[in-house]
Amino acid sequence: MSAASPTDKAVKARAAIRSGEWTGHTSGLAEGHVQGNVVILPELLANDFLRYCQRNPKPCPLLAVSEPGEALLPSLGADIDIRTDVPRYRLWRDGVLTDQPTDINNLWRSDLITFVIGCSFSFEEALLESGIPLRHIAQNRNVAMYRSNIATAPAGVFNGPMVVSMRPLKATDAIRAIQITSRFPNVHGAPVHIGNPELIGIADLAAPDYGDAVDVLPDEIPVFWACGVTPQAAITQARPEFCITHAPGAMLITDLLNHHLAI
Amino acid sequence: MSAASPTDKAVKARAAIRSGEWTGHTSGLAEGHVQGNVVILPELLANDFLRYCQRNPKPCPLLAVSEPGEALLPSLGADIDIRTDVPRYRLWRDGVLTDQPTDINNLWRSDLITFVIGCSFSFEEALLESGIPLRHIAQNRNVAMYRSNIATAPAGVFNGPMVVSMRPLKATDAIRAIQITSRFPNVHGAPVHIGNPELIGIADLAAPDYGDAVDVLPDEIPVFWACGVTPQAAITQARPEFCITHAPGAMLITDLLNHHLAI
Repeated sequence: MSAASPTDKAVKARAAIRSGEWTGHTSGLAEGHVQGNVVILPELLANDFLRYCQRNPKPCPLLAVSEPGEALLPSLGADIDIRTDVPRYRLWRDGVLTDQPTDINNLWRSDLITFVIGCSFSFEEALLESGIPLRHIAQNRNVAMYRSNIATAPAGVFNGPMVVSMRPLKATDAIRAIQITSRFPNVHGAPVHIGNPELIGIADLAAPDYGDAVDVLPDEIPVFWACGVTPQAAITQARPEFCITHAPGAMLITDLLNHHLAI
Repeated sequence: MSAASPTDKAVKARAAIRSGEWTGHTSGLAEGHVQGNVVILPELLANDFLRYCQRNPKPCPLLAVSEPGEALLPSLGADIDIRTDVPRYRLWRDGVLTDQPTDINNLWRSDLITFVIGCSFSFEEALLESGIPLRHIAQNRNVAMYRSNIATAPAGVFNGPMVVSMRPLKATDAIRAIQITSRFPNVHGAPVHIGNPELIGIADLAAPDYGDAVDVLPDEIPVFWACGVTPQAAITQARPEFCITHAPGAMLITDLLNHHLAI
């Protein structure tokens, strides 16, 4: 047997997703590959959203934007079809979640534009490779996420608080994590806050707004990164008539390699 | 009048020091130029000290090491003579401070080796240029320094605790300061600790072991860097029969530019 090329892993994972064989979370799938948050909007709203991402690059780092009505994303993978290649979607009408289908062929429109936004899975891989333990991964939980009081820069109808993810780290690991994630601006980059959560409007670390709480030990410091859930918060607030996103944790797997994102 | 070349500033400052006209602190002199901590040891002890620096690059980043008996340091400046170009020296015999002369011509020996070690003045300039306020500079105080419980790696007779300098910063400035100082490994590099001082054996930030205390405000986090006073602590402990250092704050001014140290 010959060794699989790196891209084969991504192609195979997407094939399983496309066929409906895999409809769950993508954490750990096609290891080493960039995964993306997905937002699909009608062109009329997409222009506002594109400006929103441009103005808020830390929570909304754009990996790709499609042409209107174009379901393929060749810059992320030769065979990617956004209508079938996400394990589970969320359909939002007027800002209300109405369905969670496993493909969106029957919802596709000629005016839809797809946004793919970088995800912390990429920098978490770099942290783990550097020997920095991540408690939520060790405990097989989702990362803890909070609505902070850090305002995003509004654009058109899109506005709202920055959602942040928190990872508790020892001080030396926190310093190293800042160095490492600074090299990954396309997947949220350096942290936006360290230390006292109250300074960014988080009253209780044990009560995250999304994901699962993890303990912060006495010799650890909470480290906060801008989070790709931020656009979903802005979308909920903007109540667009039509919007499709990925379901949390069920991301688009691309052919890009995490290592290639490092600057 | 023609503008002075960058090097002219360093040459002029050294001339004033060499003539005995300037015998004080060098902070703010020849702005933009690298200044160095100085340690001069007999060759017999210098080998141990060289290994000590090699094993502890964060507190003891070596900018230059002379040949035995050689008073010139051409890699740091064409006209530098280490016997005259430091504003004030400290003479140590058996680890005890015995004199603070302004030149060491009459103390020079053919077996002396000079070590020049990077100094935080270089990265402080980069922090200030990036708009990060430094309280000790704003308040015209010496930076606060503490003996931590972080052990250095011993070499021969040299051993001891890492001395750290502390600067209180807002979280976003602390993150930026980690990014900036990571680019300056030759002048202590990234911090060694952030947050709770007790975790590195510092009981009271208001009582520094060297320098002056500054307030840490409620929205600030203490950030700790390895400090060039560490070798002086190791020398005090090793009690070498003969040693010359610079007097604290009265550094060697070199022709090197701080900007050129950045990686």
